[in-house]
Amino acid sequence: MKSGYRTKIVGKWHLGHREQFLPLQHGFQEWFGAPNCHFQYNVTWRQGPNIPVYNNSLIIGRYYEDIKIDRGLGLSNYTQIMVEQALEYINRDTEEPYFLYWAPDSTHAPSYSSKKYLHSSIRDSYYGDAVREIDGGIGQILKAAKKDKSRDTLVVFTSDNGAALVSKDLAGSNGPLLCGKQTTFEGGFRVPTISWWAHGGPRGVSSEAGSHMDLLQTIAHMVGYNLPSSIVLDGRSILPILKNNSKLEDHPVFYYRGNLLYAMRLGAYKVHWYTWTTPPYELDKGIDFCPGVYMPNITTTHIQKQEPPLMYNLYRDPGEKYPIPNKYKEYRANIQLLEDTASKHKSELVPGKPVLEMCDQAVMNWSPPGCEAINRCLKPPPSKPYTCYWPH
Amino acid sequence: MKSGYRTKIVGKWHLGHREQFLPLQHGFQEWFGAPNCHFQYNVTWRQGPNIPVYNNSLIIGRYYEDIKIDRGLGLSNYTQIMVEQALEYINRDTEEPYFLYWAPDSTHAPSYSSKKYLHSSIRDSYYGDAVREIDGGIGQILKAAKKDKSRDTLVVFTSDNGAALVSKDLAGSNGPLLCGKQTTFEGGFRVPTISWWAHGGPRGVSSEAGSHMDLLQTIAHMVGYNLPSSIVLDGRSILPILKNNSKLEDHPVFYYRGNLLYAMRLGAYKVHWYTWTTPPYELDKGIDFCPGVYMPNITTTHIQKQEPPLMYNLYRDPGEKYPIPNKYKEYRANIQLLEDTASKHKSELVPGKPVLEMCDQAVMNWSPPGCEAINRCLKPPPSKPYTCYWPH
Repeated sequence: MKSGYRTKIVGKWHLGHREQFLPLQHGFQEWFGAPNCHFQYNVTWRQGPNIPVYNNSLIIGRYYEDIKIDRGLGLSNYTQIMVEQALEYINRDTEEPYFLYWAPDSTHAPSYSSKKYLHSSIRDSYYGDAVREIDGGIGQILKAAKKDKSRDTLVVFTSDNGAALVSKDLAGSNGPLLCGKQTTFEGGFRVPTISWWAHGGPRGVSSEAGSHMDLLQTIAHMVGYNLPSSIVLDGRSILPILKNNSKLEDHPVFYYRGNLLYAMRLGAYKVHWYTWTTPPYELDKGIDFCPGVYMPNITTTHIQKQEPPLMYNLYRDPGEKYPIPNKYKEYRANIQLLEDTASKHKSELVPGKPVLEMCDQAVMNWSPPGCEAINRCLKPPPSKPYTCYWPH
Repeated sequence: MKSGYRTKIVGKWHLGHREQFLPLQHGFQEWFGAPNCHFQYNVTWRQGPNIPVYNNSLIIGRYYEDIKIDRGLGLSNYTQIMVEQALEYINRDTEEPYFLYWAPDSTHAPSYSSKKYLHSSIRDSYYGDAVREIDGGIGQILKAAKKDKSRDTLVVFTSDNGAALVSKDLAGSNGPLLCGKQTTFEGGFRVPTISWWAHGGPRGVSSEAGSHMDLLQTIAHMVGYNLPSSIVLDGRSILPILKNNSKLEDHPVFYYRGNLLYAMRLGAYKVHWYTWTTPPYELDKGIDFCPGVYMPNITTTHIQKQEPPLMYNLYRDPGEKYPIPNKYKEYRANIQLLEDTASKHKSELVPGKPVLEMCDQAVMNWSPPGCEAINRCLKPPPSKPYTCYWPH
């Protein structure tokens, strides 16, 4: 192989379910998992078929039908299957380096765990049990990764968003951070990252803000690979943090919802140009992305333009409770750099081609590759493209 | 000595400033510290004198006058003095066991630290610097305590209340817990406890709820001392947790404000009979014990009787965001035991004699013992007893 290393994804892939968007078309050699979360459950196919589970390029079944998940009991063996997939891959009898991306989804509502973990958490919720099972799986994976001491393995643990507070006490918590998933407050975006590097630098804790986009450049940097300068990349290498816990130059993190830049963080400071919590028609249904929180003119149910922009010092106030008054010296000393950084970003931005504007029930997972062999093909409805509507 | 061990308190003692209430009159052999926090600062003595600092039975000076604290710069050497006091006590050339109570107060507003720590915290606040200095001091104290490996030392680290959110972003955070000091929500009462026991049990994390009142019985249990059965004690021994991380029988924790029982916790469940946040006349002044929080009819500015009582599952919902509806099975299955436990407590309670009902400026720290020798005596105003008023 040209790359000199092998690659596998185990678990959820949510960057497109159509064949041209699947992992094997985007650099992965192997895949075991599904092109969406397990939450969609359609006995009658009214909203679309159950999500298929792939083994490489062919499906081996569908959630609920073949990969059993008992939503009432919160019971499924699927995380255990994903742990086995990871262990088999790590333990293969080859010296070739590997890249393994392991993405379990049992903590997404409706949460599930296997019999061994069910009712094992002190909170006795399906979510707590699922967290414990993932924790146990990570322990097994780490142990396997550490076994061959000649390998200079890097393990990175992180998450794609803050806890979904919309699930109330059935799911996670964002600790002191404001609001949850779906919002541009810290509870929506900020997640911890823990890494272990076999031959790497000293233990330490860093307060630097990074993003998942940094991983590509960091790993390229680590292995001495020069990424082509022709491609535009939004991340940066954070190798100096992993190596020496260095303080890096401040690098902006942008908080988008759709095409609108709501907020930006640079070092200690975060500025909000727009704020929003939950639309009123969702609140009426009991859906709330910011439960129990109220800050006048900030935690608004409409998209609120902030003029002047809100500013927080996240080192001092990670919970975004105390906006710095715009007459304060601290505000005046920092606002210009923040505005300039955002302007530069906007002027240099190369917009991607929108791919989430048109929807069509006919292109859902009716007849994914491999469905014939296992008798899981479904007849798609007639094509009826329409402009997608994303309620949040 | 009859007890067979030596005892010292270093730091704040807040159980009475008059001679009969001081540490040496209540079992301590030595004291270095003050009978209140440092925050009272009265150049003109209008509200009362600066708090005196004692070395055993005599004062050696007063805060601000002799123990320098620069409130503007957040600078004082006082924590370092307290660290030295602790180290000198631990390192004394004697095999006698010791009990040391170390109670620094630099994290209480207005926070201070010594030059070495000032501006050293990433949040760059006096509070952050003070936390770092206490952390550094604890490191030195632990190191000293661990030096003599033949000693079976137990070290307990804890706090007297949750973060004072009233100080806004100048002080601490209660993470996911609701509200702060002054309230009967978890942010007011719940604090972590960390212990290290030289010859003790295995490492572990316990979710049991204890209270500082448990320490007396725990230590008596540890050393095999039978406390007299004639005294009424509210704690219990938590030795099985320290020894084997055992699960104990559920033991109630009572949340009082004054004489009113607001809430009670038993195992996973907490019940609130009354709730309250901040009185309106304090809110008007910008004082807020529950900033940024709003839950209708719960986070009220008046004392709100809850009928039916509110119930939370703290294992699932430590942030008290999701009261269990009283029509739910979980509520109905638990409310009777909670009510019965509170009734039993009330019927068995032996009320103490009130000591905080009458106030008198004449009995403040005007002329504490030892003031003559250092010329720090002040003339008390004429005695004018009045009914105390505690705004919160």
